[in-house]
Amino acid sequence: MGLADASKRILLGRKLRSSQLGETLLPKRIALPVFASDALSSVAYAPDEVFIMLSIAGTTSYVFSPWIGVAVALVMTAVIASYRQTVHAYPSGGGDYEVASVNLGPAAGTTVASALLVDYVLTVAVSISSGSQYAAAAIPFLSGHEVLFASALVVVLMALNLRGIRESGSYFAVPTYLFMVAIIGMAVYGGYRWAVGTLPEVESAALDVVPREGFEGPLTQFAMVFLLARAFSSGCAALTGVEAISNGVPAFTRPKSRNAASTLLMLGMIAVTMMLSVILLAREMGIRYVDPHELDRLRTAAGDPMPDGYDQHTVIAQIAGALFADFPPGFYFVVTMTGVILVLAANTAFNGFPVLGSILAKDGFAPRALGSRGDRLAYSNGIVFLAVMAIVLIVAFDAQTTKLIQLYIVGVFVSFNLSQLGMIRHWTRHLATEKDPGRRRTMQRSRLINAIGLAFTAVVLVVVLLTKFLEGAWITILAMTAAYFLMRSIRRHYDRVATEIAAEETDKVLPTRVHAIVLVSKLHKPTLRALAYAKASRPNVLEAVCVSTDPAETDRLLAAWDERRIDVPLKVLYSPYRELIKPIVDYAVEIRQANPRGVVAVYIPEYVVGRWWEQLLHNQSALRLKGRLLFTPGVMVTSVPFQLQSSAVALEREDRQLTRVRPGDLRRGRVTSEEAPDRVRPRSPRQR
Amino acid sequence: MGLADASKRILLGRKLRSSQLGETLLPKRIALPVFASDALSSVAYAPDEVFIMLSIAGTTSYVFSPWIGVAVALVMTAVIASYRQTVHAYPSGGGDYEVASVNLGPAAGTTVASALLVDYVLTVAVSISSGSQYAAAAIPFLSGHEVLFASALVVVLMALNLRGIRESGSYFAVPTYLFMVAIIGMAVYGGYRWAVGTLPEVESAALDVVPREGFEGPLTQFAMVFLLARAFSSGCAALTGVEAISNGVPAFTRPKSRNAASTLLMLGMIAVTMMLSVILLAREMGIRYVDPHELDRLRTAAGDPMPDGYDQHTVIAQIAGALFADFPPGFYFVVTMTGVILVLAANTAFNGFPVLGSILAKDGFAPRALGSRGDRLAYSNGIVFLAVMAIVLIVAFDAQTTKLIQLYIVGVFVSFNLSQLGMIRHWTRHLATEKDPGRRRTMQRSRLINAIGLAFTAVVLVVVLLTKFLEGAWITILAMTAAYFLMRSIRRHYDRVATEIAAEETDKVLPTRVHAIVLVSKLHKPTLRALAYAKASRPNVLEAVCVSTDPAETDRLLAAWDERRIDVPLKVLYSPYRELIKPIVDYAVEIRQANPRGVVAVYIPEYVVGRWWEQLLHNQSALRLKGRLLFTPGVMVTSVPFQLQSSAVALEREDRQLTRVRPGDLRRGRVTSEEAPDRVRPRSPRQR
Repeated sequence: MGLADASKRILLGRKLRSSQLGETLLPKRIALPVFASDALSSVAYAPDEVFIMLSIAGTTSYVFSPWIGVAVALVMTAVIASYRQTVHAYPSGGGDYEVASVNLGPAAGTTVASALLVDYVLTVAVSISSGSQYAAAAIPFLSGHEVLFASALVVVLMALNLRGIRESGSYFAVPTYLFMVAIIGMAVYGGYRWAVGTLPEVESAALDVVPREGFEGPLTQFAMVFLLARAFSSGCAALTGVEAISNGVPAFTRPKSRNAASTLLMLGMIAVTMMLSVILLAREMGIRYVDPHELDRLRTAAGDPMPDGYDQHTVIAQIAGALFADFPPGFYFVVTMTGVILVLAANTAFNGFPVLGSILAKDGFAPRALGSRGDRLAYSNGIVFLAVMAIVLIVAFDAQTTKLIQLYIVGVFVSFNLSQLGMIRHWTRHLATEKDPGRRRTMQRSRLINAIGLAFTAVVLVVVLLTKFLEGAWITILAMTAAYFLMRSIRRHYDRVATEIAAEETDKVLPTRVHAIVLVSKLHKPTLRALAYAKASRPNVLEAVCVSTDPAETDRLLAAWDERRIDVPLKVLYSPYRELIKPIVDYAVEIRQANPRGVVAVYIPEYVVGRWWEQLLHNQSALRLKGRLLFTPGVMVTSVPFQLQSSAVALEREDRQLTRVRPGDLRRGRVTSEEAPDRVRPRSPRQR
Repeated sequence: MGLADASKRILLGRKLRSSQLGETLLPKRIALPVFASDALSSVAYAPDEVFIMLSIAGTTSYVFSPWIGVAVALVMTAVIASYRQTVHAYPSGGGDYEVASVNLGPAAGTTVASALLVDYVLTVAVSISSGSQYAAAAIPFLSGHEVLFASALVVVLMALNLRGIRESGSYFAVPTYLFMVAIIGMAVYGGYRWAVGTLPEVESAALDVVPREGFEGPLTQFAMVFLLARAFSSGCAALTGVEAISNGVPAFTRPKSRNAASTLLMLGMIAVTMMLSVILLAREMGIRYVDPHELDRLRTAAGDPMPDGYDQHTVIAQIAGALFADFPPGFYFVVTMTGVILVLAANTAFNGFPVLGSILAKDGFAPRALGSRGDRLAYSNGIVFLAVMAIVLIVAFDAQTTKLIQLYIVGVFVSFNLSQLGMIRHWTRHLATEKDPGRRRTMQRSRLINAIGLAFTAVVLVVVLLTKFLEGAWITILAMTAAYFLMRSIRRHYDRVATEIAAEETDKVLPTRVHAIVLVSKLHKPTLRALAYAKASRPNVLEAVCVSTDPAETDRLLAAWDERRIDVPLKVLYSPYRELIKPIVDYAVEIRQANPRGVVAVYIPEYVVGRWWEQLLHNQSALRLKGRLLFTPGVMVTSVPFQLQSSAVALEREDRQLTRVRPGDLRRGRVTSEEAPDRVRPRSPRQR
């Protein structure tokens, strides 16, 4: 075992004995943390954004904060209820994309897909930016380097996912449950101290907030409503990630849909509880919280501006700091778990992205390679793309959650709306044929729930668009439009190709003869093997062909040919200017022209080596020749490999790659198991 | 004709009608400029370096400058005389590398090759750095941005060479002759004014130079000798590029060797004349020239330090400026042509590099791909490598010719020495067998000339090493050592592989049977074609194989298979986790195990598309599968291409690439011609 292997074992756990993927279904207690981190993590920043928006009009408007919390909770309830219908109706894991495609047509489906795509990027950017703020709260050294730290975190996540990190139930379960313990424990402890009247004040309680310019006096009713609407739409960030379960139904233990629906309900209740607790506690403890860009609007109790370098801590950090003033481990536990859950939330995007990609690939909206498990490159490109876009956003918006949140949510709510609309159509369609009164009642009830869901999410979408469009949501919409058109044009390309290659009734002409040529450079084992294989395929004509770039070498080859008495004629193509490819292509074309209904079979002996630098030293010409011959009609190219000893290294590497767990596997209920069921189930041959 | 094509026509001249390379031999009047630019261009910086070194001890030592010029001229004469022997004895274009390899063994040959390799990089760095100084003299705007400008120039040269710039005779001839006219014209005009007593003074003539610390008083004899030695070794930069002709003998018109020898003589005379003229004129016109890093050693006539921002112009610029004070076009002509010749000199490195690469590749010291004309990638990598290394040097040494020159020349003189030593051995070896007294006399004369050459170059090498080792030559030696060991290990690898694949008498076993499997995903034209081709090759067993990742799709395929009554059995490999590659590999291994002496032939239908983004959308899995199957013993992989309409685009692009002129073609006497001689000369088949 080399050093590299040893380090891999440490990183990735025990080497997998078998190469088999198996089905591992998630019980609810594991499924909840796997799918919840994205939705729950928003409690880390959504309350902050509510207070920031409200503080525009000064701290008096904080009185509305519980109501905004309640409004968000209401929308959350409606959405959760709606998705419980979806997981029953569409248990295959297609989620919103499938609902929209099936019921509203491919344009709607592609729109949902673009929305999700953009939102994955934003999930990474927002979660990691917020996470780096928490890290800065716990580790003062990081203050002021949030952009660098956040970008580095994204790079680490990318590297882990490229490497094939194993998304395992336990690696989600422990931190997610600990996070719940941290927040709910803090809320309960806070509630107790509130009840006994010893609730402390947060560090910012003594401060005062100057309203933003233009908001000083009593506000007009319209301005007030607009302000509340902005606070509400920022609070709705808590809803992102709710849809994840609808994409993950196949990963649940049976009965899949029912388990998924109960998990959804649990998730919703926990999220709403956390969110409301944090908002209530924060308000009671006297939080003062402004846009980090407007720290100059904060005033000390004496009315002076804050000293330079004042660092405003996040809402949860302030609450934990005050509650656990005498017990620092409590504070560090809350802040650390919040940071960890944010990183996990970002990681879910890396796992959801390939799942979406493979569904899109199946329908021809994304490169086909994304649809099969084997294509590491396609996966890797997707992961790198996601990371690069997230870093671009983090750098462009200075890792400021408050700014990034303006871009967020639009996508999610576009997809919520289309999905609910699709579900209403779904039920209407089924009601048209369903006769059983009991089932009809259930369907009508479901349709009503989805209609209520649509009503709520439509209102939110309008509010979000109105309040955030100019603040940044236009960027999201632009990106969605670009993604939409890209997907459509990929699909158009595949359609065009499909038309071009559709089989017609006349396509059964067999080639009349096969003229095989074996390329020879020297007389060694690979050449002899290629000759033997070519001979075994019994072509009508078989000849060896050598391109002569150096007369002396050609003479040596001819002598060896004679000496070994090889019974295949050797043709020499002279190439005084050391070209290799053109003489062969020309010769193949010539043969084909002499016999247009025949086929030219070109056999190329290849060395198979193991190390990347060996690749550079071998086969470059063979590779290039193969590429060029593909363009020549009537030619088929056969590689006859000869495995050198060093190829064993590469074989092991290849197999490791094939069997590595990929991002998204867990959410499709597919992870590596040690069992190796027999996969080749030959179908009885059909002969006519 | 698209816009891209139009722009290519403008850049590259008329589109080549034929794809044929032909032989275009160079008459002396064209060969001289093609091979001279490197050697002649050193007149642009070598005199400057001589004056810089001498001025360390103050201007009094300038009295030695003509003697240093004479010493350089002497060495030049000896070297030219020696190389005239080489071009007669080794007319194949192998140059110093061939001489050293044949006569002193491969270690010496590889040493010469590493020296040349490193020197190509330095030629680019030094020439372009000096060129950017000239540009700054003519365009004041560039002053202070020399590093950026020089790096940009290297990038432009790289791009042109990657693009396949055509090194044509005329594109060298015109500027090289104009440069000769400029320098020699200036010298003649200067000589005339000197004769009539109106020689003006250069701009720095009124200045004074303070000796460097430690050199103030009268120097010890040793210090003086060391100073002169340093000046001499910098002046020897004039000798670089002389060896180019010995690599280009095949490009000359017949009698090749004699023409090459006369061109060499002409080159030497012109170079010596230019060099001596510039040194003499500069001294007579009162030049004061110091290291640009020590401008504080310059003093005005009043003894004050120079004002801030004083820019010291190059020697040629100062002479031209003074001589043509009343005629600015004269000044600009001299400076511009000097800049142009420096860029051309840098470009010769881009042309010499691939020539060296292909010679090394033939002997197994460089990747084989460099040896054939077809491999664009290998060429491109070499060109990019050269450019990147040159830019690294330019940035590291701040585009200061004075610093870079400390690294230069070592390589050239290592190669000069080994080459002369090799030539002496060559003659001694031939004298051992030669009986004819006339020929023996000629050989003895040649050996004497080479011995004198060796004596001179050995002295210079020792002087260069002593004076420059600590100043930077150690970097060159380090780089040469690294290149040497890299080449040796490449060769070792090829040797090891050759042993492993050497054919033995027992390697004639024919496979007993061929089991062909055709991969099928859908039933379309490419699949039908692959089936037809596979059938035409008459395997013992033929079956179609489909990997089922989606049961519905598989059912559709099976239905279509039945409907079209295809008489090949279709086997379905189930892959519930969407793996494509592993089921096929496993199946192939299984077949092979059942019949170890048989062969498995895997037929893969492939779409051939034309545009790079179409490539991304197709064949990724096929490519990956082919790569993986190569590692499976007993399997041969056949690509059956189906050319889509768009592939025509790529075919045209491929053919353009194949026929494009590559760097170095001209110096091997090979450029594109319109004639297309028949290249396929079939040798009568040998049948036994």
